[in-house]
Amino acid sequence: MTMHESFALGVFLSVEGLDGSGKTTILPHVRRWIEERGHSVRLIREPGGTKLGERIRELLLDPGLAPMDPWAEVCLYVASQAQQVRDIIVPCLEQGIWVLADRFRDATVAYQGWGRELGADRVKDLQDLVLGPLFPHLTVLLDCDVAVAWHRVAKRATSRDRLEQEARPFMEKVRQGYLDLARQYPQRFVVIDATQPLAKVFQDVTAVLEATWTSGLSGGRGGM
Amino acid sequence: MTMHESFALGVFLSVEGLDGSGKTTILPHVRRWIEERGHSVRLIREPGGTKLGERIRELLLDPGLAPMDPWAEVCLYVASQAQQVRDIIVPCLEQGIWVLADRFRDATVAYQGWGRELGADRVKDLQDLVLGPLFPHLTVLLDCDVAVAWHRVAKRATSRDRLEQEARPFMEKVRQGYLDLARQYPQRFVVIDATQPLAKVFQDVTAVLEATWTSGLSGGRGGM
Repeated sequence: MTMHESFALGVFLSVEGLDGSGKTTILPHVRRWIEERGHSVRLIREPGGTKLGERIRELLLDPGLAPMDPWAEVCLYVASQAQQVRDIIVPCLEQGIWVLADRFRDATVAYQGWGRELGADRVKDLQDLVLGPLFPHLTVLLDCDVAVAWHRVAKRATSRDRLEQEARPFMEKVRQGYLDLARQYPQRFVVIDATQPLAKVFQDVTAVLEATWTSGLSGGRGGM
Repeated sequence: MTMHESFALGVFLSVEGLDGSGKTTILPHVRRWIEERGHSVRLIREPGGTKLGERIRELLLDPGLAPMDPWAEVCLYVASQAQQVRDIIVPCLEQGIWVLADRFRDATVAYQGWGRELGADRVKDLQDLVLGPLFPHLTVLLDCDVAVAWHRVAKRATSRDRLEQEARPFMEKVRQGYLDLARQYPQRFVVIDATQPLAKVFQDVTAVLEATWTSGLSGGRGGM
């Protein structure tokens, strides 16, 4: 079965955004929405999801390995993505199971390509070599003013790992990277204002899912 | 200091070949040859060499992580290479320290590009994105009939890890990959017949080093 045929069965959704954009709050809502429509859904996170991915996650979060070469970092993220595609995403889609990703390949473009200034196109070229044309059908970008995201993250006393210690100018670049992706791939990306009250964010996300459902995306239009 | 300027100070040598081609025996000989000429030399191995690289090595050799996606494998090797370039190779060359690599980027092209049939050009394109034009000045390829290499490896009872359990047809493809690289980059590659008696292999390697030394490669002609 080719990648495109597989897309005809399951649907692949990703939720993207800065730390503090509300991904963790929104994901169970999306999951419930999918399950209420009678579909099985598999949650994955980036990096991680597979045995290899979780080991890679340990490396990426280990302060003892800093400073990590930024291209080594890209390679580790994309290695995790490749293993997820092979072990989880393609098998699930082939069986009609929906896949809901807490970040996927766009995050590498935003964080490493933009945030670390490696160049979005170079990161995308590398991902194209490794992952081919496998993209989510729909990507919900929880866009959030950096000051707001920063404030939310600062309140979580436990999450002081290497990634979340990044400075605000870095987060600003990442946000711009995400918005640039949304402009480049308007068919796939939907931008939600994540600074709104939570009930309104839920409502917007639900509206996007309903509209996507109605337009028959679950019949498979292929990734972009 | 740019990469090219750095090459004017130290010299970067790599030794490539199948398991069983005699790399482990030849490397100390090359090291001694360099030190006898009054140069400091840093040995690196692939994957490994850095803290990140050694952690990546653990992942690559862990049978519990099999089957690993072959592109994830490429990404892990190239991540290790990127960290080696940053932490070891460039700093050493800049200080005039020679670098002697037990395999480097060519091994990924031979093993993954050829052996796993991912395509040599795709692997090279990925390495070019990540590593840029950093190649050894001189690469000694210990070319060895697969039957001979296989026989030598089989005698080492302790080295039954995932990589060395590869079947002979795989090793045949890797060997062809190495020979193809040697044909493509004749300025940088020297092929030594590693099935000869050890004394003759030493003699051939020494002759290559002497010739390279005489031709003034240490003045830096840049990698190819």
